[in-house]
Amino acid sequence: MNAGEDAERRARVALSFLADPGDPVLGAALRSRTAAEILALTAGADPAGDLWLSADPEADALSRATRKWRRRLSLVPSVARHAAWQENGLRLVVPSDPEWPSQLDDLGDARPLLLWVQGSADLRYACLRSVSVVGARAATGYGVNTGLHLAAGLAERGMTVVSGGAYGIDASAHRGALAADGLTVAVLAGGLSYRYPVGHAALFAAVAAQGILVSECPPDDPPTRPGFLIRNRIIAALGRGTVVVEAALRSGALNTARHARDLCRPVMAVPGPVTSEQSAGCHELIREYGAMCVTSARDILEHLSPAAEGPGSGPRRGPAVDLDRLDPVARSVLEHVPARGGRGSAGVAARAGVDLDTAVRELGLLAAAGYVRRNDLGWQAVRARASGHRGPEAS
Amino acid sequence: MNAGEDAERRARVALSFLADPGDPVLGAALRSRTAAEILALTAGADPAGDLWLSADPEADALSRATRKWRRRLSLVPSVARHAAWQENGLRLVVPSDPEWPSQLDDLGDARPLLLWVQGSADLRYACLRSVSVVGARAATGYGVNTGLHLAAGLAERGMTVVSGGAYGIDASAHRGALAADGLTVAVLAGGLSYRYPVGHAALFAAVAAQGILVSECPPDDPPTRPGFLIRNRIIAALGRGTVVVEAALRSGALNTARHARDLCRPVMAVPGPVTSEQSAGCHELIREYGAMCVTSARDILEHLSPAAEGPGSGPRRGPAVDLDRLDPVARSVLEHVPARGGRGSAGVAARAGVDLDTAVRELGLLAAAGYVRRNDLGWQAVRARASGHRGPEAS
Repeated sequence: MNAGEDAERRARVALSFLADPGDPVLGAALRSRTAAEILALTAGADPAGDLWLSADPEADALSRATRKWRRRLSLVPSVARHAAWQENGLRLVVPSDPEWPSQLDDLGDARPLLLWVQGSADLRYACLRSVSVVGARAATGYGVNTGLHLAAGLAERGMTVVSGGAYGIDASAHRGALAADGLTVAVLAGGLSYRYPVGHAALFAAVAAQGILVSECPPDDPPTRPGFLIRNRIIAALGRGTVVVEAALRSGALNTARHARDLCRPVMAVPGPVTSEQSAGCHELIREYGAMCVTSARDILEHLSPAAEGPGSGPRRGPAVDLDRLDPVARSVLEHVPARGGRGSAGVAARAGVDLDTAVRELGLLAAAGYVRRNDLGWQAVRARASGHRGPEAS
Repeated sequence: MNAGEDAERRARVALSFLADPGDPVLGAALRSRTAAEILALTAGADPAGDLWLSADPEADALSRATRKWRRRLSLVPSVARHAAWQENGLRLVVPSDPEWPSQLDDLGDARPLLLWVQGSADLRYACLRSVSVVGARAATGYGVNTGLHLAAGLAERGMTVVSGGAYGIDASAHRGALAADGLTVAVLAGGLSYRYPVGHAALFAAVAAQGILVSECPPDDPPTRPGFLIRNRIIAALGRGTVVVEAALRSGALNTARHARDLCRPVMAVPGPVTSEQSAGCHELIREYGAMCVTSARDILEHLSPAAEGPGSGPRRGPAVDLDRLDPVARSVLEHVPARGGRGSAGVAARAGVDLDTAVRELGLLAAAGYVRRNDLGWQAVRARASGHRGPEAS
């Protein structure tokens, strides 16, 4: 990582403690300015600047925002606090990182500043083939059962199940994917150390062990009321499509569906008894908004097929990029990632004879391509399954 | 009725005992020939005609068919048998009759030769605003409940509910309409004296008393296996749209939906639990065939609205044709139909000073326009509700 990238990364982290998640003024400002420039503006913001008005409404909004952010500068945590989070297994992913899921870039100005990530899998790789499965917290037995079955069916077909970690349908989606030994991504509305709701502590631990926890919020922050809706855009963007399993007419799950529609992602809904209020939102999606009526994981995959095709389509069989196409540095790094146990980035860097930044970058790319994955011990090479692909084991 | 109309009517009746319902050869022949001509061909058919082949495949098919029909000539019942049916409350309706529902003409060659009709209501009038509600015989409790509620809701909104009189969803549709004091039409696959299935004797009696029983088959005929599917085209044609309440993937109700689609009538389906096999056909209709997902009578009416508009739209308010526009003969006949009790056609004819055929034709037209209806005692004038329409009571 060069000095510019590092400064940009540090600036994004600082801004993430100053601006609210999804702040549109910050998103617009980042179109023409670097995060480091905006942070410098914030640090130098004139507290008395309210007294004059600019002719440019965008510059005016930024000027007001930086003055607000300046008052929060004390919220930016210490290096020690950061180190503690990282010791607890949290890692930071910014848009220039190999682990950044490129589909988040479709959010434009609403793209998250950064993501806090926790879990053994690589986020970008996990989201290459992914479906968002959402629904009501106040789910019925029918909805929970359906969520479990759909998610398990999707996981069995190699799809990652993205959801929001809430009670009801979200939980059933995560649990179905975990039960099928698949990948699941929980996008939380609060911070990853706060882990709301508390009743899902065991579920979140299981997701972190087998899948990925994600949040754009500072780790210690509790979720805010608007935060749940703002978070939904990330769920919609991470999936290749969004399935609403059960939702009443005013359910928050319909908000996720709207985000998916705005992103031109396929929106699907599961029908239910017409006598159930908890299915009325799904029926409305089908009737009024052209959502696809889906009743099985197979239906979902058929509807997604153009988007779901691509690297790793079909049952997961191995890396998405042929070994031949890796550059010499990547191959050298890969050769020093053990197939059993794990090795830290520094250990891999030392053995491969590259500096730590290079090793971290290459390892991220290798993870995105499906050659390595994180575990509790560090990095581990992924054992390729029998297939036409040449995996790392074939070398 | 003139002599030609009378001969045509008699010929259709005779042919209805010779040809199978929906016989495509007969339908095609009626495009260019009268029923009387075809009956004459049949009576004079050469039993040895198989020995030569015509150059015209259609004439050839008709020649073969007439020889088959000729062997069945003994099936045409006696005048006494006809009189007995009519004494039992059955009436014959042919395409030139005022009670003939004009939407059956959309069936083209597959238009029924005639209909046997039994019940107090006028078939043409009843079908001006109508929805076909069909579904599986092996219905679930959910399906039966939903059928009852939808049909009752449609009846409350002035819609006639058309169905097939079968166990399961069909029965729930008839019962829902009856419970809401509405009109319902049961199109049977067998004859109206046979009244299959036997277990629905009480239901058919209730439909005949408050609605209409309809069949294109000779009254004493039991239904045949293909007869159920052939009958479905009449159900689809009589409704302004078809709603499938519950249907497995290979249910006969999907055949009715296909007929409705072929007739360019809206096809609607009610969703259900994805765990229910009995809803899989409905979900397939929505997903694969673009059927509208409907969950309430209001949904159905909204979806039908262009077709449902027209005479009598909204809560039934009175006749579809202004009194001013009735011709003097019709007005004279109408004046002699009592508002309470009832009077037979002959009684009305005598008092109005017209012959019986004229009275029957005018009464049919008046019924179609909503001025009179049949009851157990004969004809009764319909009391107009308060509205902008001038009803018969206003004269």
